[in-house]
Amino acid sequence: MRVYLDNAATTAMDDRVIEAMLPFMKLHYGNPSSVHSHGREVRSAIEKARKKVAELLNATPTEIFFTSGGTEADNTAIVCGIETHGITHAITSPIEHHAVLHTLEECAKKGKVKLSILDVNEKGEIDLGQLEALLKANPKSFISLMHANNEIGNINDLNRIGELARTYDAFFHSDTVQTMGHFVHDLKTLPVDAIVAGAHKFHGPKGSGFLYVRKDKKIHPFIHGGAQERNMRGGTENVIGIVGIAKALELAYEDMGSHRKHIESLKTRFMEALKENIPGVAFNGLSADLNKSLYTVLNVSLPPSEENRGMLLFNLDLNGISASGGSACSSGATVGSHVLKAIGHDPERESVRFSFSRFNTAEEVDYTVEKLKELYGVTV
Amino acid sequence: MRVYLDNAATTAMDDRVIEAMLPFMKLHYGNPSSVHSHGREVRSAIEKARKKVAELLNATPTEIFFTSGGTEADNTAIVCGIETHGITHAITSPIEHHAVLHTLEECAKKGKVKLSILDVNEKGEIDLGQLEALLKANPKSFISLMHANNEIGNINDLNRIGELARTYDAFFHSDTVQTMGHFVHDLKTLPVDAIVAGAHKFHGPKGSGFLYVRKDKKIHPFIHGGAQERNMRGGTENVIGIVGIAKALELAYEDMGSHRKHIESLKTRFMEALKENIPGVAFNGLSADLNKSLYTVLNVSLPPSEENRGMLLFNLDLNGISASGGSACSSGATVGSHVLKAIGHDPERESVRFSFSRFNTAEEVDYTVEKLKELYGVTV
Repeated sequence: MRVYLDNAATTAMDDRVIEAMLPFMKLHYGNPSSVHSHGREVRSAIEKARKKVAELLNATPTEIFFTSGGTEADNTAIVCGIETHGITHAITSPIEHHAVLHTLEECAKKGKVKLSILDVNEKGEIDLGQLEALLKANPKSFISLMHANNEIGNINDLNRIGELARTYDAFFHSDTVQTMGHFVHDLKTLPVDAIVAGAHKFHGPKGSGFLYVRKDKKIHPFIHGGAQERNMRGGTENVIGIVGIAKALELAYEDMGSHRKHIESLKTRFMEALKENIPGVAFNGLSADLNKSLYTVLNVSLPPSEENRGMLLFNLDLNGISASGGSACSSGATVGSHVLKAIGHDPERESVRFSFSRFNTAEEVDYTVEKLKELYGVTV
Repeated sequence: MRVYLDNAATTAMDDRVIEAMLPFMKLHYGNPSSVHSHGREVRSAIEKARKKVAELLNATPTEIFFTSGGTEADNTAIVCGIETHGITHAITSPIEHHAVLHTLEECAKKGKVKLSILDVNEKGEIDLGQLEALLKANPKSFISLMHANNEIGNINDLNRIGELARTYDAFFHSDTVQTMGHFVHDLKTLPVDAIVAGAHKFHGPKGSGFLYVRKDKKIHPFIHGGAQERNMRGGTENVIGIVGIAKALELAYEDMGSHRKHIESLKTRFMEALKENIPGVAFNGLSADLNKSLYTVLNVSLPPSEENRGMLLFNLDLNGISASGGSACSSGATVGSHVLKAIGHDPERESVRFSFSRFNTAEEVDYTVEKLKELYGVTV
């Protein structure tokens, strides 16, 4: 059996998304910037996609900019948000994705901003009191705090952070890569200035994302070149990627309720079975709390075990189970997870992020539990 | 009849490229940074693609970085080339693509470099003597000069420019978007430090490109985030785009000789028929010179005509013929071509760029000539 429980890293494409993309591979090949018929038919598809995304998020089409993914969108929001608005102080947390952390660190290294990093407790929670104190001391700051953490699943309260941002005239960017397509974002009421998406986190294509920037917080382009994306991003548009992300988001919104229910049931089933069968199992961050974490992520902390020390992911892989230790984006590196380190995770224990999608089944969860029982020598 | 003669803007995808991409939409969906089996099978495809590209260009795989297209690759080479190597003076020409010109202008605006723009004559030729004088006065400059112009087709002599660059210790970047896949680039002998590609210019997918950087001229990343592309470009890889660009380049190299012969015959046929049939026709830049211009591009200057003033592209479009006035990337803007302006093109005449691919036929060329004859009232 081959079980894919690494959906926070990337998801399988939905067949309906592929179907939507194929005509733009096989038939409609014009450059959307060309004014002739070959170009116009493609331009029309892009603007239709933009309108669809805007509609789903309750935004306006002029606030949506297509990018090559969540990382480029984060880089754009951060680098250009800071530059355009003449910001000199930025606030973030130590458990942000590297697309945010490394970009802000680079801005700080270049002397563009002073960077304040919030404390997190052993559950990965930030302290809104500390955030407010920093904002009070540094009005017009740049805030970058993710909607939900990709490793431990913790959900931040964007409403409360956004209210503080507005009170102290800050620019509020949130990396929403893990929640886009899994939770509703209503941008008429959500007090954020910039959020981002990567299509491949919700059954769309890799290499496609978008950036939302609130219209009264306009920013300069990050990639310079042609007049594409209303002068906001040079480069011939990734047409199939754009068609794909819009279709994927449409499907995600259509079925969000039933998918959430299905995935939550898998997460609960998995969690209960682990608690019942693996003595000493624990869950990192808030991932065991269904109300405060992604329903797609469970970060499991397993007790010390000689057989699995540094080998658990490998042992799971041998059994056909794909899961991850931390973010896939840095798994090539030999360093451990910066998120687990920040929350003081005991290095003697093995931690595995299991992440679910609508394509997973109860059978797969049960199989994974069985294999973990075997690996941890639990007699049946 | 529908005729597509705008292949310098973008090309139709080759069916064999689509075939190569499909398994990575339908089956192999893992994140290439994941260490488990789902990830490894995709990682392997990416590294195979990198090896193939490197092999075709006579480079090493560590010199190839996949990007979201030619524009991002140009931005990376320019912004990071200048920053990494502490360069304070840059040289370019007024007929570069906006991906180069706007990016350099931005660097100049931010005070990172002083920018020198070479003169061009009425044929769009740069003066290598002027380049050498500038290099002599400003050693360790950044040079960005394109391999071939996307509007008038002029080919620059990269060998001579590169020798000057080496003599004066300059960093030499060349926008090779229009020549990649149409001409051989042998990076063992070609004296360039950075070149770029956009897959959609040679029958690959839009939204996929690469940057070559010579290994002794390493640069910092432009997009920060995960450890992808050996820490050179954050963001989950556009797997289908990468598989697609490698396949497209492989096919381009396989068939380059026969395609060149075919396309050159179309260009010649078109040029001869126009000279014979449209009194007063001329050709912009060096595009009529087969030895000094892209075989894929013919930029036609048509005599003043009341019926076609400002309407020629539209009239062609009504007849099913897709061609362009300038670069597609800025055609949405109301401004005219900066290239034609730089070479002093007579605004009373209409200029159209016709650009060919291996998918065009002699019949299409003849049809276009017939329609131009009709539009210019040439009695048969």
